[in-house]
Amino acid sequence: MTSPDRALLIDLDGVLYQENKMIPGAVDTLHWIEAQHIEHLFITNTSSKSRLALLEKFQQIGFDTEIDRIITPIVATSEWLQQKAIRSAALFVKVEASTDFSALDILPAESEGPVDAVVVGDLGEAWDYQTLNRAFRLLMQDPQPVLVALGMTRYWQSGGGLSLDVAPFIKALEYAADCQAEVMGKPSTSFYQSALALLGYPAHRVTMIGDDIAGDVEGAQRAGIQALLVKTGKFRERDLASSIKPDGLLDSIADLPDWWEAQKNTASNRSEVN
Amino acid sequence: MTSPDRALLIDLDGVLYQENKMIPGAVDTLHWIEAQHIEHLFITNTSSKSRLALLEKFQQIGFDTEIDRIITPIVATSEWLQQKAIRSAALFVKVEASTDFSALDILPAESEGPVDAVVVGDLGEAWDYQTLNRAFRLLMQDPQPVLVALGMTRYWQSGGGLSLDVAPFIKALEYAADCQAEVMGKPSTSFYQSALALLGYPAHRVTMIGDDIAGDVEGAQRAGIQALLVKTGKFRERDLASSIKPDGLLDSIADLPDWWEAQKNTASNRSEVN
Repeated sequence: MTSPDRALLIDLDGVLYQENKMIPGAVDTLHWIEAQHIEHLFITNTSSKSRLALLEKFQQIGFDTEIDRIITPIVATSEWLQQKAIRSAALFVKVEASTDFSALDILPAESEGPVDAVVVGDLGEAWDYQTLNRAFRLLMQDPQPVLVALGMTRYWQSGGGLSLDVAPFIKALEYAADCQAEVMGKPSTSFYQSALALLGYPAHRVTMIGDDIAGDVEGAQRAGIQALLVKTGKFRERDLASSIKPDGLLDSIADLPDWWEAQKNTASNRSEVN
Repeated sequence: MTSPDRALLIDLDGVLYQENKMIPGAVDTLHWIEAQHIEHLFITNTSSKSRLALLEKFQQIGFDTEIDRIITPIVATSEWLQQKAIRSAALFVKVEASTDFSALDILPAESEGPVDAVVVGDLGEAWDYQTLNRAFRLLMQDPQPVLVALGMTRYWQSGGGLSLDVAPFIKALEYAADCQAEVMGKPSTSFYQSALALLGYPAHRVTMIGDDIAGDVEGAQRAGIQALLVKTGKFRERDLASSIKPDGLLDSIADLPDWWEAQKNTASNRSEVN
């Protein structure tokens, strides 16, 4: 029998929980994953919280894991910068999020550089002309530092109305400094590659499970990763009419164990036929 | 004789003056233009000053004209909005520049709209998250207001270093609100068309004179206007190697009367041959 010696990447919001409530069966599936010794990481686009803060939130709503299993755009950026041997960075992220950059030399706020990377996340109301102009001036240095975007979300719905997220500020900097940002966050291939590096598995032996046909399914597939779509969270029926085809469709993550076993049997049958 | 019944569009900085000093012969040429009764307008990309402020600056350094002859991106925007029967606008421009928008209903700063146009210029250090987000929210209304950019300059050299100009903020808004700005300012065709409307001449009977191979020569030619390049201001020898070919090359605006007369004779000779 060819053992399905595969690992898992698991989206958080909409797959494990929704609006601070666990999705029915999600905790059982997590216990099953642990019992089966399936290697796994949790992968999220949140870049405004440290992974410690995320872990505490998970624990409050009913599941526990190890902190190293949580991959945020910040964690992936740290990994990616290390792979590229980039040691110094200027951070434009919320203070709460900056703790996950511990392996880097962080440029002090008053310093004009030089620096190897300019990392930009959702600063929200902390953006002002001087802050954006500082990021721009750092990017105009020679050699030009790499611009890293912690996701490319356009806006979000706040209590007061629509609010600009990180992407518009990235577009402003890209145009001003004539450069292209490296985007960390789903659906970016670099983001999935960093997750694979942290997982220690090649793409063809990994399955992603998510509720977003673009960020989760298309993004993972472009990185060579098998992708399952769940019908919870932001899933809509029209996603099935998309040109993007998931490798499997589950009512929810509660169905993952059955799907996994069926795949194993298929692989095993195929092996017997060959 | 076919009379060269043509009009003139004249760039300011680099053509008439440079660093607060008139270019030799420029005042004589202006007197010659007036004596010949050649219809003319002055056209500049400055959007941080009212035309009254510009006129006062011109007078200080030695030439006079009528205020209505000065076309800035703001004047062209007013004209363009009128042509489109757009009556209300939210302004994101410096207070000094807002006086030239008198024909419009200006949305008060506290108002959330609705509004027909969002006009964005160089706000400099007055940009902050709330201001940019207000422009974004106005652009997200249905029907979507038109976004007008007062030029598309990326940055400028201030005393303190490089400083973001209007274009990066336009790019941020375009991406966030998924729209395309109407750019007023050279080399935009809309800008030249507004100038033609104010001049009251069709494109094929107008000559532009400028020192910028892209903004002045290429921009005017794309709008169907004949374009002369002067070797003063920002002119560089390498401009002659460009794929953009001016319709005439002058050492400076001092040579305009001779060039004009020669053209008239050519037109006259051609007419005799025919």
